Amino acid sequence: MEKIMFKNYEEPELNSPIFVGGLPGIGNVGKITVDYFVDKLKMKKLADVYSEFLPPQVFINNNVVHLVRESLYYKKTSGEHDFIFLTGDFQGTTQEGQYELSYRMLEFLKKYEVSMIYTLGGYSVGKIVEKPRVLGAVTDKKLIKPLARKGVIFSEGEPSGGIVGSAGLILGMGTELFSIPGACFMGETSGYFADPKSAREIIMVLAKVLKTRINLKDIDEKTRQLEDITEKMKQEAQNKAPKDDLGYFG
Amino acid sequence: MEKIMFKNYEEPELNSPIFVGGLPGIGNVGKITVDYFVDKLKMKKLADVYSEFLPPQVFINNNVVHLVRESLYYKKTSGEHDFIFLTGDFQGTTQEGQYELSYRMLEFLKKYEVSMIYTLGGYSVGKIVEKPRVLGAVTDKKLIKPLARKGVIFSEGEPSGGIVGSAGLILGMGTELFSIPGACFMGETSGYFADPKSAREIIMVLAKVLKTRINLKDIDEKTRQLEDITEKMKQEAQNKAPKDDLGYFG
Amino acid sequence: MEKIMFKNYEEPELNSPIFVGGLPGIGNVGKITVDYFVDKLKMKKLADVYSEFLPPQVFINNNVVHLVRESLYYKKTSGEHDFIFLTGDFQGTTQEGQYELSYRMLEFLKKYEVSMIYTLGGYSVGKIVEKPRVLGAVTDKKLIKPLARKGVIFSEGEPSGGIVGSAGLILGMGTELFSIPGACFMGETSGYFADPKSAREIIMVLAKVLKTRINLKDIDEKTRQLEDITEKMKQEAQNKAPKDDLGYFG
Amino acid sequence: MEKIMFKNYEEPELNSPIFVGGLPGIGNVGKITVDYFVDKLKMKKLADVYSEFLPPQVFINNNVVHLVRESLYYKKTSGEHDFIFLTGDFQGTTQEGQYELSYRMLEFLKKYEVSMIYTLGGYSVGKIVEKPRVLGAVTDKKLIKPLARKGVIFSEGEPSGGIVGSAGLILGMGTELFSIPGACFMGETSGYFADPKSAREIIMVLAKVLKTRINLKDIDEKTRQLEDITEKMKQEAQNKAPKDDLGYFG
Repeated sequence: MEKIMFKNYEEPELNSPIFVGGLPGIGNVGKITVDYFVDKLKMKKLADVYSEFLPPQVFINNNVVHLVRESLYYKKTSGEHDFIFLTGDFQGTTQEGQYELSYRMLEFLKKYEVSMIYTLGGYSVGKIVEKPRVLGAVTDKKLIKPLARKGVIFSEGEPSGGIVGSAGLILGMGTELFSIPGACFMGETSGYFADPKSAREIIMVLAKVLKTRINLKDIDEKTRQLEDITEKMKQEAQNKAPKDDLGYFG
Repeated sequence: MEKIMFKNYEEPELNSPIFVGGLPGIGNVGKITVDYFVDKLKMKKLADVYSEFLPPQVFINNNVVHLVRESLYYKKTSGEHDFIFLTGDFQGTTQEGQYELSYRMLEFLKKYEVSMIYTLGGYSVGKIVEKPRVLGAVTDKKLIKPLARKGVIFSEGEPSGGIVGSAGLILGMGTELFSIPGACFMGETSGYFADPKSAREIIMVLAKVLKTRINLKDIDEKTRQLEDITEKMKQEAQNKAPKDDLGYFG
Repeated sequence: MEKIMFKNYEEPELNSPIFVGGLPGIGNVGKITVDYFVDKLKMKKLADVYSEFLPPQVFINNNVVHLVRESLYYKKTSGEHDFIFLTGDFQGTTQEGQYELSYRMLEFLKKYEVSMIYTLGGYSVGKIVEKPRVLGAVTDKKLIKPLARKGVIFSEGEPSGGIVGSAGLILGMGTELFSIPGACFMGETSGYFADPKSAREIIMVLAKVLKTRINLKDIDEKTRQLEDITEKMKQEAQNKAPKDDLGYFG
Repeated sequence: MEKIMFKNYEEPELNSPIFVGGLPGIGNVGKITVDYFVDKLKMKKLADVYSEFLPPQVFINNNVVHLVRESLYYKKTSGEHDFIFLTGDFQGTTQEGQYELSYRMLEFLKKYEVSMIYTLGGYSVGKIVEKPRVLGAVTDKKLIKPLARKGVIFSEGEPSGGIVGSAGLILGMGTELFSIPGACFMGETSGYFADPKSAREIIMVLAKVLKTRINLKDIDEKTRQLEDITEKMKQEAQNKAPKDDLGYFG
C-alpha cells in the first residue's frame, strides 16, 4: 500500500490560500483551534488522509467505525486569501511518519499555491497560566513585526529547545524545501489537560491575522467550564490547608 | 524480498463471497471461531501468507518446522454467497505491518469481488463473564438492524475506545479504500485466557449471519472444560474465605 | 543504499553444494561450529555481506577497522557435494532484518543450486549439561531417519516453542519459498556463555552428515578449558558450603 | 519524500580533497573540532542535508526556526589537498539512519574524488583526563606510521569494542565499498560533558595532518573555562573531605 493515501472530495479553485495546521499535541491547543474554525466558518472537506504512520485502529461512533485519519478543509473567502485548514485524529507516531506526513502535506498544498503557512501548538509551562500568551516563531525575520502587531509575542529565548512534531516540520520543510514562508503560534498551557483557554487566545490572534471574524461564544463557554473546574480544585486545595492548621483548635 | 508473499494453492471461482477474518487477539476469540469454522465446514486452503511483518521464527510440530504465516481458506456453498476465511499464527507485529497486511488482504480479496466483510475479536471486560454478549460495530448504519435480528448487540458507547489491530483495519480500510461494507463482532471475554465460551457465542451468531449450520459439540466440550476450571477456581476461592472466618472458632 | 550488499570474491563452479549456516546466537554454538569448519577445512572466502540490518559499527583489530558483516565461505570436495558455509559478526537486529538477510542469503544460494540446508544453533536448557545432545528439526519427515542414524536426536516435543532467528528462517523460507529441503541441528547448552562443548557435539554430527573428516584437537582443548573453569566453580561452591558448616567448630 | 535530501549551495572544483567528519557524539569532541575549523578557516557552505533519519524538529534561534540538519563545508587551499568538512545537529537516530546517512555522504563525496577520510570522535574513559591522548584507528596498516609521526597514538587494544556510529561507518564503508582510505581520531574524554580540552588535542593533531595552521586562542579559552570549573569542583570535593576529618577536633 502507499504509506500515505489522500482521498480527495473536491478540487476547488483557491485564491492564494493560507494554510493553517493544528494537529493533536500539547494541551491539544492546535487541534481545538482548527476544529473551532472549521466548525464556525462552516468549512468544506477537501481531503481525508489515511496512513500507516497513524495508529492501526478505528474509532467507534454510535456503533459505526471511523478509520483514524487527518483531514483537510477549505474555505473560499471574500478577501485576498482563501483558507486551507488541517486537523486530525493523530500526528504521525514515528520519526519517519512525522517527516513523511508533513512533506506529503506540503506537496499536496503545492498545487494550490499556498502563500503562507501558520502552524499551531501548545507551549507547555508546567503550571496553570492565568493569562496565556501566544508566542511566535517565524521562518523569516521580516514576519515578526506584522505578526507582533496582531498580538503574537516574540520573546527572546522563548520557547527554548525548538518545536517538535508537525508544527515544527511543516514550517521548517515549508521554508527550506518548498520556499513557503510561515510562522508557528504557540499558546501557553500547563500541558496537563486539553486547554480551551489557551486555544481561545490563539483563536483571537489567528482571526486577526486571517482578517476574519469568528464567534467566540462557544470557546468562551468551554473556557468558563475549565476555569470553574480549576477554581474548584484551587479552593479545595486551600480548604484543605486551613483545616489542617485549625486542627489545633479541634 | 517482498514484504508480504502470497502462496496460492487454488484459484477457485467464488460466488459473491463473504469474508470472515479472525486472527490471534484478545481471548483469541476471533481465531478460535475461524479455526472452528475451517474445521467443521471442511474448508479448503486458498493461500498461505508469509511476511516480514510476522515474528522471525518457525514453530516445530513433530520435529517438522512450520514457518509462521496467515492462511486463507474458502468454502463453496449452495447459498447466495461462498466464504473466504482468514486465520493465522500472528497479527502483524508493528503498526506498519498491521496496515500492510490488512491492505494486502483486501487487495487479494478484490479479485474475488467480496461482497461483505465480517471481522471477529474479543472485547475485554476484565472479569469472567457468565453470559458473553456479542457486540457489533458496522461500516454503515443500515447494517445494524439486520445484524441485530441475528443476535448481535448494538449498545451505545460499547465498546469504547475503538478497535485496535486487523479486526479494525480490515473493516476501516475495507469501507474507506475498497468500498466493501462490513461489521465487526466482538465477544465479551475476561481477556485473561483463550476463551472458547466467548468464541461459542460468536460461532452461533456467525452461523446465523452466514445462514449455515455448524455442529457445536466440540466447542461446547471446550466451553465445559473451561467452566469446570473456572468453577473449581471459584470454589477454591470460596473455601478459602469461610476457613478464614471459621478460624475464630478453632 | 541497498539494504544488503554482497561483495563477491570468487564465482566458483560448485557441485550440488550443501549449505551450512551458523550465526551468533544461544551459546554461540552455531558460529563456533562454522568457524571451526572454515578454519580446519581451509575454506575460501566466497563473499562478504554488509547491511544496515547489522549494528552501525566497526570493530578494531590491531588498530585496523573491520566493518561488521556476515561472510560466506566455500570448499570444493572430492565427494558428491561441495560446501558453502555462513558465519558472521551478528544476526540481523530487527524482525525485518532477520527476514531480509535470510531471504537474500537464499537468493544468493539459488545460483549455486544448493541441494540441502543445515542450520546450526544452541538449545538453551538453563543449566550446565554434562553430555549435550544434538536435537534436530527438519523440513520433511523423510529426513528424520537418515539424520537420526548420524546421531541427531529427534525427540517428541523438543525443542518446544520453535526456532527464533536465522536458523529458523533460512530453513522455513528455504522449504516454503525456494523448495530446498533442510534441517536444523541444535546443541544443548546452558545458554549462559559461549559453549565449545556443545559446539563439539554438533561438529561431530555435522562431520558425519557431510561425510568429511575434521580434526577435533583444538575444540577438545577449548572444551577442556571450559570444563576446568566450570569444575573450579563447582568446587568453590562445594568448598564454601562445608566451611560454613564447620564454622561451628572454629 | 526522499529519505535524505541534499540542498547544494555550490559546485566548486576541488583538488583531491580530504574529508573530515565530526558529528555530535561522545563529549561532542568531533563536532567541536569540525565547527572550530569551519569557523577559523572561514570555510564555505557546500550543502545542507535534511533527513527523516534526524529528529522531527526545528530549533528556534532569535525567534527564527532552523530545520535540523547536517552540513558540509569546503575550503580551497594552496596545498595539495582541498578540504571538505562535515558537521551537524545530530547523527542518524536509528541503525538504518546511521547506515543511510553515512552511505549517502560517501556517494556525495565520490564526485569530488575524495582522497582521504578522517573521522573524529571521543573515546570515553569514564573519568576526567589530565592530558587527553588522541587515539587512532585506520583502514590500512600502512597509515599507522605517518599518522603516529603527527602525534596520533596507536596503542594495542585501544580503543576496545570498536567505533559505533558515523565515525565508524563512514570509515568502514569508505574503505569496503568506496575504496577510500581513512583513519579515525578519538580524543580521550570523561564522556560526562562537552569537552573542548579533548577537542583541542584533536585540533592540534588534525592541523598537523592537514598541514594547515589554526589559531588556538579561542579553544584555549574554552579549555581554561572548563578547567576552572573542574578545578573548583575538585577543591569543593577536597574541602568537604578535610572538614569531615577535622570534625573530630570540633
